[in-house]
Order: sequence, then C-alpha cells, then structure tokens
Amino acid sequence: MAIKHALPVTREKDFAAWYQAVIAEADLAEESGVRGCMVIRPWGYGIWERMQRILDDRIRATGHENCYFPLFIPLSFFEKEAEHVDGFAKEMAVVTHHRLIADGQGGLKPDPAAKLEEPLVVRPTSETVIGAAFSRWVQSWRDLPVLINQWANVVRWEMRTRMFLRTAEFLWQEGHTAHAAEAEARDETLRMLEVYRDFAEDALAMHVIAGEKPENERFPGAVATYSIEAMMGDGKALQAGTSHYLGQNFARAQDIRYQSADGGHELAHTTSWGVSTRMIGGLIMVHGDDDGLRVPPRVAPWQVVIVPLLRDGPEDEAVIAYARELQAELSRGQALGEPVRALLDLKPVKAATKRWSWVKKGAPVIVEVGGRDVAGGNVSVIRRDRLYRADGKLDSAVTPRADFVAAAGALLEAVQEALHAASVEQLRANVVPASDWAAVEAHFGGDARAPGWLDVAWSKPTGPALDAVVERLKALKLTIRNAPLGQTGHPGDPCVFTGEPAVERVLIGRAY
Amino acid sequence: MAIKHALPVTREKDFAAWYQAVIAEADLAEESGVRGCMVIRPWGYGIWERMQRILDDRIRATGHENCYFPLFIPLSFFEKEAEHVDGFAKEMAVVTHHRLIADGQGGLKPDPAAKLEEPLVVRPTSETVIGAAFSRWVQSWRDLPVLINQWANVVRWEMRTRMFLRTAEFLWQEGHTAHAAEAEARDETLRMLEVYRDFAEDALAMHVIAGEKPENERFPGAVATYSIEAMMGDGKALQAGTSHYLGQNFARAQDIRYQSADGGHELAHTTSWGVSTRMIGGLIMVHGDDDGLRVPPRVAPWQVVIVPLLRDGPEDEAVIAYARELQAELSRGQALGEPVRALLDLKPVKAATKRWSWVKKGAPVIVEVGGRDVAGGNVSVIRRDRLYRADGKLDSAVTPRADFVAAAGALLEAVQEALHAASVEQLRANVVPASDWAAVEAHFGGDARAPGWLDVAWSKPTGPALDAVVERLKALKLTIRNAPLGQTGHPGDPCVFTGEPAVERVLIGRAY
Repeated sequence: MAIKHALPVTREKDFAAWYQAVIAEADLAEESGVRGCMVIRPWGYGIWERMQRILDDRIRATGHENCYFPLFIPLSFFEKEAEHVDGFAKEMAVVTHHRLIADGQGGLKPDPAAKLEEPLVVRPTSETVIGAAFSRWVQSWRDLPVLINQWANVVRWEMRTRMFLRTAEFLWQEGHTAHAAEAEARDETLRMLEVYRDFAEDALAMHVIAGEKPENERFPGAVATYSIEAMMGDGKALQAGTSHYLGQNFARAQDIRYQSADGGHELAHTTSWGVSTRMIGGLIMVHGDDDGLRVPPRVAPWQVVIVPLLRDGPEDEAVIAYARELQAELSRGQALGEPVRALLDLKPVKAATKRWSWVKKGAPVIVEVGGRDVAGGNVSVIRRDRLYRADGKLDSAVTPRADFVAAAGALLEAVQEALHAASVEQLRANVVPASDWAAVEAHFGGDARAPGWLDVAWSKPTGPALDAVVERLKALKLTIRNAPLGQTGHPGDPCVFTGEPAVERVLIGRAY
Repeated sequence: MAIKHALPVTREKDFAAWYQAVIAEADLAEESGVRGCMVIRPWGYGIWERMQRILDDRIRATGHENCYFPLFIPLSFFEKEAEHVDGFAKEMAVVTHHRLIADGQGGLKPDPAAKLEEPLVVRPTSETVIGAAFSRWVQSWRDLPVLINQWANVVRWEMRTRMFLRTAEFLWQEGHTAHAAEAEARDETLRMLEVYRDFAEDALAMHVIAGEKPENERFPGAVATYSIEAMMGDGKALQAGTSHYLGQNFARAQDIRYQSADGGHELAHTTSWGVSTRMIGGLIMVHGDDDGLRVPPRVAPWQVVIVPLLRDGPEDEAVIAYARELQAELSRGQALGEPVRALLDLKPVKAATKRWSWVKKGAPVIVEVGGRDVAGGNVSVIRRDRLYRADGKLDSAVTPRADFVAAAGALLEAVQEALHAASVEQLRANVVPASDWAAVEAHFGGDARAPGWLDVAWSKPTGPALDAVVERLKALKLTIRNAPLGQTGHPGDPCVFTGEPAVERVLIGRAY
C-alpha cells in the first residue's frame, strides 16, 4: 500500500522544497518580513535551547566561562586585521546613524544630523572586539590561559539565504581562548573539536567526521581550521561546527602580549570555535523524513506528547484526568539522565490534527488516550522513528499504561539510538573510495543529486597548485570537506588530483 | 578601630564613584571601546545567567514559550505605530549599508553601491516585529491566547550611559502576549508583574514595591503600565521591571484580529513585559557595601569559594587534597533547593589577594584552608554579609570542617535571608508619608543626597493638570514612581499637589 505521507512533498521528489516544507509544517521557523532574517518559532527555538543547555554544560566542564561582548564593532577594529576582513568579503551590516526623523512625507528617515563619526559594524564574529579585551586582560603568564565563550547573535549579509543554513542573522556560540604555549592552544583547538564531535553524536544523534579543512577553506587569518562534517539525507555535506588555531596572527594584530615567567614579552596563541543555529538545518536534513522532522529525544523540547481523544461530552473529564495522571507519572521518570519531558496537549483542536501536528514536529513518542484506553487501563503509543507497520498503516500500539510508563525511559533511549544508528549507516553507505580522477568524474559527473562523498588520497598541494585543484572540483560542484583525523600509515593511492605521492586522504563532496 | 575597606571609595563619600568602583573591582563589566556598550565579564555574566535561569523557569511555569525574532526591523514597521515611535524619541541605531569597501587611504568605508533601499533599525524593543508575527499567527479564537517570550539584546541610543543602568546595548527578556478578552489581558499584565515582584524578593533578595505608573510614565502606546520599584543604597529609586497592558492599540496598528466563536471579527488585546541587565545595577546598589558587591546566594555563580593558603612547598599537596575533598563534599549538599555551587580557586595568585578579590566580587561564603586547618580538621569561614567583628577585624571563624559542611546549606539560606531583610529595612526606614506640598519641599529641598521616598495622596490628574504636577516635581528632581497595588479605603490626606480630594497614594522620589 502506498503511504500517504504528512508532507506535501517528498525528499525523493524535491529535496529543497521538502526542506522548506519541514520547516513550515513542523513550526520551526518562518520568514519575518526582514530580508534574510527568520522568526524562530517555539518548537524550533525549544530545540535550540536544548542544544544550548547541553553544549553549554560541556563548554563549562572544559573550563570555559561565559561573557558578553558588544554587538557593534567600530570600523577601525576591522582595519587592523586586513586578512580577516578580506575573508569576510566585507558583507556586513553597517550602522551609520543613531536617530530617525520625519521625512516630511509621513514617513521616517535617518537623521542627517545624527550621522556617526565612525560607522559601526554589526558583529559578523567577535575576534576583533574580544581580542581587544584580551589585550587589556592579559599582562602576565599568570593571566593565561583565558578561556571564554559567548552565546550571541551575529550578522553576515548573505546574498542568497536559506532558513537555518544561511541567514543574515543567526545565533551561535563563539569560544575564544588565549594561551602562553602553541602546543596548549593546539590542544585546545582539538579538545573543542572533540566536544563538538561528541555533542553531535551523543546529543543530536548525528554522525559526523572530524578533520582538518584544507588551506583554502581556513577561517580568515587562521593557521589551522578543523570541522565536523555531517551527511545530509540527500548525500550532501554540512559543515556543522568549526574550531580554529589562530596562531599568533590575531595576537599580533591586537597586541595580546604577556610577560613570561622569565621576564620576556611574548605574543599569546589564540583559538576560536563555534557552532550555530545552522545545526538545526543539519538536524532536519539528517533526521527528517517524508512525514516531517524526527527530533532526537535528548534535544526534544517535549519527548512524550499526550493527545487526548475528546468528544466534547461528559466522558471527556475522565479522559483528561487519566491523561493528567499519565503525564505526572511520566514526568517522575527519567530518560537519558534527566526527568522525562511530557506534555499534555489540551489545545481546542481535533485529535487527528494534533496527532499529525506532533508527527510533523517530530515529538519522539506520541501517546493517544481515548475512552476505550481509559476503560482498559491502556495507552496507544506511536513511536515517531518507526511510524508505519509493514503493511503501510500507522503503527499505533495499544499498551497497558503501567507497562508504558515503566518502559518510557528505555523507549526514549531506544529512539535516540535508532536515529543515531540510521545516521551512522547513511554516512557509512555513502562514502566510497576513489583511486583516480576518472573515478571522481564518473561518480559525480552529470548526476543531479549528490551521490554521497568520495574518500580520496591527495598530495596536499598549497598555493597555486591547490587553487588548480579547487577549480577542478568546482567544475563538478565539489569541495574538499576535510582530512579526517586519526589517519595512520600511508594513504594508499597516489594523489587523485596530481598523481604525485599522496600524504593523506580527504573527503570530497557537494555541500550546503 | 576604623575599618580599612576594600574599595578605594565609600558609598558615603561618592555614591556614583563607588558604583563604578564596585563594577570594576568585582570584575562585573568594563568599557568596551564601543560607545555606550559594555563588556560583561564572567562574574557579571554569571549572575545574569543565574537570573535568566530562575526567571525563565517562572516564565515557562506560567505558560509562556520562548522564540526568537529578528534583530533588524524595517523602517516601515515603525511608521505604522506613530505614538510608539514618538515615545522612543527616535534614538535608534540605523543600518543603512550592507558592505564595506576600501576608502583608498588604507581604511574602510560603507560601500555607496551597497546602500539599503529601506534602512533597518536595530530593535529597541520588538512590539512591531512581533505584532506582525501575531497578525500571521492569529486567525481564530482557537489561536488565542498567544503567550511568548524572547531573551535578546536591544539597542537604544542613549546620550548619557552608565554601566548596567543605561547602556546603548542591553540584554533583556521581553514577553508578548495576545488575548481574546480584555480582562484576560489585564490579568496577564498583573500576573507577570507579580512574577517579577516575587523574583526580585525571592531570587535577588531585593525588596520592591509593585504598582501602577502614572499616565506620563506609561510605555509609549500602552493603556496601563505597572512597575516594580526598588530602593537603592542612596535612597533613590530604580524601576526594575515593567508590565504593560497595551489594550487594542498595537493590535489595531498591526492588524491582530481573530474570528470569535460566534463568527465576528475582533481585535486582540495585547500585553508586553520585560526586565533587563539593568537589574544587575539594582543588585549592586541594593546589596553592595564599601567592600564591594554582596551577591545573594540564589544568583551567585559560586556560592562558596575555597581559597587554599599555599606556600609553594611540599605541604601544599595536602592542603589542595583537603580543599578538593571539601569542594566535593559541599557540591553533594543542597542549598535553596539546588546543589551547592562550590569553587576551589587554584589560580597562581597570593591567597590574600584571592580572598579580597572574592570579597569584592561578593561570593556569599569564602572558606580559607591552610596547613593548620588541615591538621586540626577545620576550615576558616568568612560570611560576606557580615564581614567584620564588632572590633572592626575581619570575622574569619575557625570551624570543624564536618560542622561547616553539614550547615553549609543553612548558612547560605541565612545569607539570602539576611540580605533580603536588610533590603526590606532599607525601604521601610526610608519611605515616609507627607501630607502637603510644603512637607515635600522641606524633605527634598536643597539636599544633595536623596532622602528616600515620600508616600503622598493625590487626585490622579490627567492631561495638562498632570503635566503641571510633573513640572513641579521635576524642579525638585523628583518623579512619581508608582501607585502601590492593593490600596484599600480612602487615601487619607487631600491631594498633595492640588489640594483636591485624593483618589490614591503614590510614591515620589529621585530615581535612576
């Protein structure tokens, strides 16, 4: 039997339209009427808050403290860091006036008398303004390391925007640290990459490959950039988090110097690392299906949603009382190390509409309770990650209430694991080795959808030789994603680009 | 014996300079180099995060959901709401360009080719953009109420700024709700005011008076504005939170209409309410003393700080091990319904410097541990709210470690209560009644410091008659703070301004 799915479009038919449909139908976000800026709705923002809470705990556990730096950065701060600014392509929102006045035609306009002497840039990232603070804070080796993090909104004036993946304003955390020794700063860079990798796997059930970006993909001004790369449902890659070792480049531009124990004056070594609301785009494209989103229980604002089947009659009272008791019982239980988050949905909407609304939102477990369930001491359980039976019918399992409550924690853990296993399998099945350029062309040539990634050996060229590689890849809409960490031994093949002896293996693919 | 206090200036000598000294010496915040914007340092931001966590829980518990709306608001959104914009005096940061280019002199400038067709305003508050969303979301009575909240940064281009109290950029939460019935919207307005009142008393140990603001102090466009007012250490008032019933004014401007159950089309009634990082300024001026800040334990990032007395010798190891055990024991305990937050400060700094640094920061309890304490199984305990003995010496009490650990929760609760009691007493002792204008002039005339508030009866004039009252008060640098809620019976005296029969009592005073 052909399943009639909840979304108006399937992944197979039009992945880009499907992505927008999930965002709309799952009430994650919407256009705001402000170019490139979105409204993040409660379900989408609730997922972000869960992500924040979990990641923030891990950022603190590794010794970092949160602070807050200004939204505005004076133009002169950017002039100090030429390479960094070039990298941001100067597409930034610029504040030039501090007052509005009537325009004489019933409207408003910037007041020419209130023009700023120095324009202010809305932060695209905070290296420059945080570097200025570090320069004040760091005097002696005793002041190091400085380990700070900021949760903030940032703005990059993107020409083509796509919700969550590329928006003019987005939300993120940016970690910034300064160290006395290079080795310590390099360790920090990799430590935070590992925090991201583990967070993606463990909290988001999203399998990722941690590795180093090629020189051409480095953060502007960085000495080394690392990323975690996730594979989306259409086989494309999403860079889901980055960590940068900035060497002494920013310290030099911003004068972050310290007196060492032996009295010398040294430049600090700095790092920065961040993840953003872009990860929600990744979550959608990793765990979404043709019925909407499937939210991993760890980051689901509500893990179990109880939908009462009401008939606007006197029997409703007993159904609601039963559902309330169920909610209370569930909330006393634990799943994944925290109290179960159970919602009783009492909105004045038809039960079938509610059920499908929660299916599309991707609540991990939906429980329906009607008069018959009350009479029998049962609940009807829908597990979002396994929505249909083999015969194509919705898999709603009538279960004794006590059994369901006792097993709810285990059930949520099973959903978390199943989503992770599917993500691991998606990546495993769609990364294959290629030993020469012809194989690369054969794999990617002419195909409208991106058939996963290729795992190839390369000689790690730099400068113009690297530029040539980038151009060849670009013709196939490909990029080098990263060189996975932990490679040992010889890469096997010669360089797929140059035929020269290879030094490591890299992943190439199409990307968001 | 004259106490040598930790700050370079006392409250008595120069309250304004003392306020700045607390902020600097307690590492709360600092100037950023960006006009009117501050850097909130880890200790200051940690207090804000504690405040956020506690208040957010209460905002959720009253049925609200968090979302996120754009930082930028198109000019046209403001043109719809004339009264609202007038109220904001149009002092707003305006984005006019989206790109920088080289200025030909080694610097950067806004690219004339990248001028925005419609300038964007950096949100001073989000009524307009959230109203536009409500207009999309609300179709039927079934969609109401809409109860949402946002944690965000906002910008108001203040000419004179003071850290935490009045900054160009500040952090806040803004709640926005829409309701079918006026009574429900009015209830919501008062419910959130009560959430703020209770939060201030219970979490911040800050005594406040909840009441209605006079007409001239209403939020632009509001039908009624309520506030909580706290009394600072110098007797001035600080408006620490506001809640507004907006009537149908914003709904009319923004077309928030719903189809009622009987098929009619009605305008919704809306509310908004907010508190900001300004509350940290209030915390400083309520709980600060001449040795720095005293942070109420509920909002202290660290409640107990352990300072080991190290001598750079082999005996240090035992001291550190003892301190680590102490930290672990404390962290297993509970205070005020949560695990105790205990820090072991191992920074490479002298113990005396550390002690005074934590005194200035206002950690509720500081515990020193040296070789003698280890030998005797003791700890030396300093309670920040009672720093000195009667003879003027620092009150450091040697206590058996087990006793201290067992009583740590109760000790922190006692500190919380003592700070609250002092705040209640400060307000009680400095609000007195005045029955005529001569008494008002006598009380406030000529005095450089503000001797608290007066409690006076008034006839609640409106329009020009109110303007005249406002002008008379202004000559004495006074404002009406609010008309406290819960007044019953006759106000007693005739109106202190007009001599006419009074309708209620209001508080007047100087304010931040």
